Amino acid sequence: MAAAPHPSSVAPPEVTMELHAGNRDRLVAALRAHLSASARPLHGLVLLQGGEERTRYCTDHLELFRQESYFAYLFGVQEPGLYGAIDIVSGQSILFAPRLPADYAVWMGEIKPLSYFKDKYKVDMVFYVDEIAQVLQDRFGVHGKPLLFVLYGKNTDSGNYSKPASFEGMEKFDSDSSTLHPILTECRVIKSDMEIALIQYANDVSSEAHIEVMRQARPGMKEYQLESIFLHHVYMYGGCRYCSYTCICATGENSSVLHYGHAAAPNDRTLNDGDMALMDMGAEYHFYGSDITCSYPINGKFSNNQTIIYNAVLRAHNAVITHMWPGVNWMDMHKLAEQTILESLKKERIIHGDVTDMMTQRLGSVFMPHGLGHLLGIDTHDPGGYPEGLERPKEPGLSSLRTIRELKEGMVITVEPGCYFIDALLIPARDDPVSSKFFNWEEIEKYKRFGGVRIESDVYVTAHGCKNLTNCPRETWEIEAVMAGAPWPLRASTEKSTNNGLPKAS
Amino acid sequence: MAAAPHPSSVAPPEVTMELHAGNRDRLVAALRAHLSASARPLHGLVLLQGGEERTRYCTDHLELFRQESYFAYLFGVQEPGLYGAIDIVSGQSILFAPRLPADYAVWMGEIKPLSYFKDKYKVDMVFYVDEIAQVLQDRFGVHGKPLLFVLYGKNTDSGNYSKPASFEGMEKFDSDSSTLHPILTECRVIKSDMEIALIQYANDVSSEAHIEVMRQARPGMKEYQLESIFLHHVYMYGGCRYCSYTCICATGENSSVLHYGHAAAPNDRTLNDGDMALMDMGAEYHFYGSDITCSYPINGKFSNNQTIIYNAVLRAHNAVITHMWPGVNWMDMHKLAEQTILESLKKERIIHGDVTDMMTQRLGSVFMPHGLGHLLGIDTHDPGGYPEGLERPKEPGLSSLRTIRELKEGMVITVEPGCYFIDALLIPARDDPVSSKFFNWEEIEKYKRFGGVRIESDVYVTAHGCKNLTNCPRETWEIEAVMAGAPWPLRASTEKSTNNGLPKAS
Repeated sequence: MAAAPHPSSVAPPEVTMELHAGNRDRLVAALRAHLSASARPLHGLVLLQGGEERTRYCTDHLELFRQESYFAYLFGVQEPGLYGAIDIVSGQSILFAPRLPADYAVWMGEIKPLSYFKDKYKVDMVFYVDEIAQVLQDRFGVHGKPLLFVLYGKNTDSGNYSKPASFEGMEKFDSDSSTLHPILTECRVIKSDMEIALIQYANDVSSEAHIEVMRQARPGMKEYQLESIFLHHVYMYGGCRYCSYTCICATGENSSVLHYGHAAAPNDRTLNDGDMALMDMGAEYHFYGSDITCSYPINGKFSNNQTIIYNAVLRAHNAVITHMWPGVNWMDMHKLAEQTILESLKKERIIHGDVTDMMTQRLGSVFMPHGLGHLLGIDTHDPGGYPEGLERPKEPGLSSLRTIRELKEGMVITVEPGCYFIDALLIPARDDPVSSKFFNWEEIEKYKRFGGVRIESDVYVTAHGCKNLTNCPRETWEIEAVMAGAPWPLRASTEKSTNNGLPKAS
Repeated sequence: MAAAPHPSSVAPPEVTMELHAGNRDRLVAALRAHLSASARPLHGLVLLQGGEERTRYCTDHLELFRQESYFAYLFGVQEPGLYGAIDIVSGQSILFAPRLPADYAVWMGEIKPLSYFKDKYKVDMVFYVDEIAQVLQDRFGVHGKPLLFVLYGKNTDSGNYSKPASFEGMEKFDSDSSTLHPILTECRVIKSDMEIALIQYANDVSSEAHIEVMRQARPGMKEYQLESIFLHHVYMYGGCRYCSYTCICATGENSSVLHYGHAAAPNDRTLNDGDMALMDMGAEYHFYGSDITCSYPINGKFSNNQTIIYNAVLRAHNAVITHMWPGVNWMDMHKLAEQTILESLKKERIIHGDVTDMMTQRLGSVFMPHGLGHLLGIDTHDPGGYPEGLERPKEPGLSSLRTIRELKEGMVITVEPGCYFIDALLIPARDDPVSSKFFNWEEIEKYKRFGGVRIESDVYVTAHGCKNLTNCPRETWEIEAVMAGAPWPLRASTEKSTNNGLPKAS
C-alpha cells in the first residue's frame, strides 16, 4: 500500500521548561518590585495548588484532566494533584507531588520517583504533598513563620474566584491572599517569546485544520462532521489533544448564535447549498491556545448577499489590525470595527442615516453584540482584561467587551468582528422608534435566515505594530480558490513552486 | 474531485423517546410493587435533578456537558439544568426546564418554549424549574403533602453518593431518599430491546473504528494518532460526540497499565516494530455506550510469544462466552477465565504446578489483577453490580470484581480477560515463597517488556445463552488478514461478494 502524501506541514514542537522558569522569574521580579514599592519585607513564598482529577457525577468515570491555568503558567505540570511553591528571596522553585498508593502502579502507570518530576519540570526541589508544612517550616521558616502568598481573586469573564491553596497544617502559617492574584494575572497578560512560539504553533496547526475543513465541507454533511475533521487534523498531525473551547460549527441560521455548539445546540444541523458556515475552532498545545473563526459559503461560491456581509466584516477586521499598536485603546478598536461595519451596511442601503448618530445610538451592537476580542493565552479568555481601576462599560455592545485596556507590547488579543442578523436584537430595535429609523427593514428582511459572519484572528502586539498569528484565506476570492482545491498560501503561477505540504491544485 | 468511497457501513440511527418512556414505565411498576409489598401507600412522585453545566476552575471555559446518567435513563434529555418528575399513581411524567435569561438567545441559541421540550421528550407536562414547588403542590398535593422520592445512594464502583434533587420550596414536602436508588438502579441492570439496539449501534460503530485503527497502525506513529483515528471514525461516520471513557491506546510496556491514557500517561509513546498494542476504546450514542478492547502486534504479524499470550486470553474470552447464560454466577466466570489462562501458561511452561493449587493461591490475579467484566449501559461501569446483601470479596483479583451477581436475561456485561506482565505484581510474587514456586522465572523474564493483552467484548445475556454485540477480528489469523487489508468480516473467495461498505482486499 503506497503511503498517502502527508496531509500536514506542521509537526508538534519540543516544549522546553525554560518557558515556565521564565514565567516564574517574571512573577518573582514583579512581586519583589511590588513589595519594595509598598515598603513590605522581601520574604515569603508563592504557593499554588494544581488542579485535581474529577469524576462524572457519582460515577467512577474520570473526566480527562486539564491543569488549572495559573498553575500551568508557573510550572507547566500536566499531572493532577501537585502543589508548587516559589521562594521570593531566592527564586527557588519547589514542586510537591502526591504520594500515590501502591495499586496506582497496576491501574494508572509507574509510580514516578520525585527525581522524575525534578528532571521533567526543571524545578529546584521536589517533595511529597504530605510534606508541605514541614518543608516550608524547616527550609523557609528560620526567621519566623514563612508568609504564604496564595492565589485568590476574581476572574472578570466568569465572575468566579480562584480557589486558594490549602494543605494540612496550613493554619501554622501566615498567608496573604490579596497580593498575588493581580500581579500574577498581569504577568500572564504580557507574553514572552517562548509563549508566543507556542501560540503561533497552535495557530499554525489550527489554521491548517480550518483549511482542511473548508476543503471537505459539502452540502448534505452534518455540522459535527466539520468538527470531527478539525479535531482529527489538530490531534493526528498537530498532537493537540485539547481544544481551547468547544468547536462552534454553525451553518445557516445557527451562525447567528454566538456560542453555538454546546450540548443543547450540538452542531447537528445538515449543511444546505446556499448556507454560510461560521467555524470558530482552535487547538491548544502545551496549554497555549488559539481561537480562530472562518466564515464561508458551504457550496464554495459567495452569493451577492454573502459577499456584502462578509466584506463588511473583513473590512472591520483589517481596519482594526492596521490600527493596532502599543498605546491604542481597545474600546476605540471596538468602535472602529462597529463604524466600519455600519459604513459598509449603509453603502449597501441595509441601514441609512448618519453613522455618527448610529454610533451614539449604539446601533453597532445590534449587528455585533459581542466584544471585538479578548486576551488569549493559556485560557481562551485569558485573564487580566479588567485590572483594578478599570470598570466594565454599561452601554450595549461595549458591556460585552472582555477588556478595554490600552494595548501593550507582548499582548495577544483576538480580533473578531462579526455581523449577525439576530431576531432577539432586531425585533427590539424595530420596536424602538429611535433606532428603528436607521434600518431599511425591507433590506433587512432579505437577510432573515442569513445567520451571521465572524472573522477572527489572533494578533500579537509588537513594539511598533502587530503581527497576525493566524494564517487562513480571508479574501472571498482566496476562500473560493482554496475551497476549489488551490494550495494555501496561493501561489502565482510564475512563482517558484515550494512544497508546503498541502495538497496541490489539480 | 471524485468522492472517496464511503469508509463506513454504519449510519446514526433515529432515537425514539419511547425508549425512555419504557424506562419510566418499568420504574413505576417496580416502585408500585415495592410499596405494595411493604404495605406502604401507593402515592408520591419520583423527582430527579438533571446535571448542570460546569466551568473549568475559575474561568468561563464551559466544559462540554454530558447528562447525569440516571436522569438520562428516565428522560433522555440532552440539555443541562432540567428536573424531571414521575407521578407513581398515574405514571404521568413532567419536565421542568430552566427559565433562561433574554441574552441566552444571543449567545447560546433560541430560547425554546416549554412545548418544545414536551414534543421533543414526549412527556405529559412541562413547566419551569421555578414552578416546581407550586406545580407539585397544586397538582399532586390534593390529599396532603405529596411525598417525593429522591435519588440518594452509593455507586459501588466509585464509592460516591448520588446527589438528591433540591429546589426552592422543597422544605414544604416530605421526601424519601432511601427507596428510589436501589429500585431505579435495578431497573438499569436489565436492558430493554430499545436499549440493546443503541448499545448494539455503539458496538457496531466502535468495532468498525477499531478495525480502521488496526489497519492504519504502523511503527513510527504515536499512540495518540491511533486515538485520533478512532475518535474521528466514530464521530465523522457514527455521529458519536462522546466516548464511554478516555481512550486507552497502550503499546509496548504501556499495555500492562490497565487504565493508561489519562492526563499523566497521555497516549504519547512512539510505536515500535515488535510492540503489542492494547486498544481499549468505545463510543457512546445517545448516552448508551460500548467498551471494546483489541490487542494486536503493531507490525501486523504475531510473534511466537505474542501468539502464546494472545491465545491464552482468547481462550479465556471464548470459554466465558460459551458458558454465559441466566443463572450463572459472575465470580465463577471470573475463575473460569483465570483457570483457562493459567492452564495455557502452564502448557507453555511459563508457570508450573497444580492449577487447582494455583487457584487456591489466587495466582491468576498476578496475571489478571482486574475483574473479568462489568455491567455496561449509560455508564461504562453501569451501576447495580453490588445490590444490598452482596458483599465485595476480599481475595486478590476477586476484590476487583465490579459485580459477583448471577447473570440475568437482559444484562449487558463486558467480557474482558487479560494477561499482563506487571512488575509491581511479579516482584512481590517472586518474594513470596508460596507463590514463587509456581513461576518459571526464566520464562517470565522473556516477557519483561511485553506489557499485556486484553480482549474485551460486550455481551448481552439472552433467555437461553448470550449474544456478543462486538464484532472485531479475534483469531490471530483474522487480525493478521484484516491488518493486511482484507475486508471484515472475512469472506471465502467463493462467497458472493456483498457490499459491506468496508474497503476491499486488494
